[in-house]
Amino acid sequence: MSRLFVIKIGGNIVDNESKLAQFLSDLSSIEDRIILIHGGGKIATALADKMGVEQTMVNGRRITDASTLEIVTMVYAGLINKNIVAQLQANGCNAIGLSGADGNTILSHKRTVALLDYGYVGDVDMVNTSVISALLQAGLVPVFSAITHDGKGQLLNTNADTVAQEIATAMAKEFKTTLIYSFEKEGVLLDVDDDASVIPHLSSEYYEELKAESKIFAGMIPKLDNAFSAVSRGIDGVIIGKAEKIKELTSGKTGTLIK
Amino acid sequence: MSRLFVIKIGGNIVDNESKLAQFLSDLSSIEDRIILIHGGGKIATALADKMGVEQTMVNGRRITDASTLEIVTMVYAGLINKNIVAQLQANGCNAIGLSGADGNTILSHKRTVALLDYGYVGDVDMVNTSVISALLQAGLVPVFSAITHDGKGQLLNTNADTVAQEIATAMAKEFKTTLIYSFEKEGVLLDVDDDASVIPHLSSEYYEELKAESKIFAGMIPKLDNAFSAVSRGIDGVIIGKAEKIKELTSGKTGTLIK
Repeated sequence: MSRLFVIKIGGNIVDNESKLAQFLSDLSSIEDRIILIHGGGKIATALADKMGVEQTMVNGRRITDASTLEIVTMVYAGLINKNIVAQLQANGCNAIGLSGADGNTILSHKRTVALLDYGYVGDVDMVNTSVISALLQAGLVPVFSAITHDGKGQLLNTNADTVAQEIATAMAKEFKTTLIYSFEKEGVLLDVDDDASVIPHLSSEYYEELKAESKIFAGMIPKLDNAFSAVSRGIDGVIIGKAEKIKELTSGKTGTLIK
Repeated sequence: MSRLFVIKIGGNIVDNESKLAQFLSDLSSIEDRIILIHGGGKIATALADKMGVEQTMVNGRRITDASTLEIVTMVYAGLINKNIVAQLQANGCNAIGLSGADGNTILSHKRTVALLDYGYVGDVDMVNTSVISALLQAGLVPVFSAITHDGKGQLLNTNADTVAQEIATAMAKEFKTTLIYSFEKEGVLLDVDDDASVIPHLSSEYYEELKAESKIFAGMIPKLDNAFSAVSRGIDGVIIGKAEKIKELTSGKTGTLIK
């Protein structure tokens, strides 16, 4: 099987013009097949402010009402996605920007209301790999925003880490797939304030141990749960690390590896 | 050669939720290959108002400063494009939304400043047909917003009628291509207030005659100049007519035909 990297780029990098430009330049020099996934939180919040649309956050998660869905569709699938694609093109990388509605690539359903109504938020049901494979085959680099659809005309705001995990596990049937979560930290850290405390290999046993001792930074837990779920579903491995070292991450020289 | 319809949908239809829904449902039932192009003026203006970004229009054309470029990228390539794609998917049509940056499909350059600086407005240099053909081959229906790029990382706002014409003439090398301008009128009218005055066939001689007699509605002239330019560049024909009759337009039963 040939190799594929499914790379999620964190919001703090997307928000930083010079870091993003360097990341996209580095990414363009990678010779393996790549799929890129981005979110982009702060720009959406800034636009909502300008438009006077109040944003409700519960436990760090955005409640997506109808106006907020319009905003995230504009910002994620429009402004950020097309600027990333244009910059990749400028670096000689033939990128194609997609939402999950495009080519019917990612089907989701509106999250059922339990204790809290998250609004127009999608939980992924299926990734259609045939169109994604056809694009890769044509030499294109798919760039996904985390907007999906329900197949009945409704767009849905979706967690970008989850989108990356779902794409990676689906593509693992056709490619030797590595999922990379690239963000502002060196990897999974034993001490959140010390970049030198990166854990090079994280087994599920060690992860459970660290969680039990409350040694894992709370914000990392959903990402790591996603990572272990992906590994159990057939992908080759998950690498978590610094976006500024994306090339070293793909060659396994830095970051935290989960197998 | 197999047949291809390149269809431009007018802003007044995009702005009207129920007309757009009907159009997309009708479009999904057409069995020939299709490429759809849309703009979407009023929604961008409404967003600019909400954000307090002043819009300058000169002779009906928008001056695209940096803030306005962000707005049209969000509205055209994000909000409108993804909602059109999601609705087509709901109708069983496997649409894929694109800007000219995606797959490097449409290269343009920033318009040189002559008497007036239009800002970030692109004049098309080249349509790369290979990616578009690969998408058609994969059974996808490309849906273009009128945002293009210069290959150096700059997105550019581009006239949607021109984008449609450039795509149609480029694709004419591989397909028997008909360009359709669909909008709120029955076709090219002798009397702008009388829908029954539609001209069924418009030759270039008759067009010059009507222009000399000032019998062509001024707003139609750029569209018709685009149409005659397309015909002279190898496409099979241009049809101008009512979006609500899109199926009849593709079978040549209504509208104005230019050959």
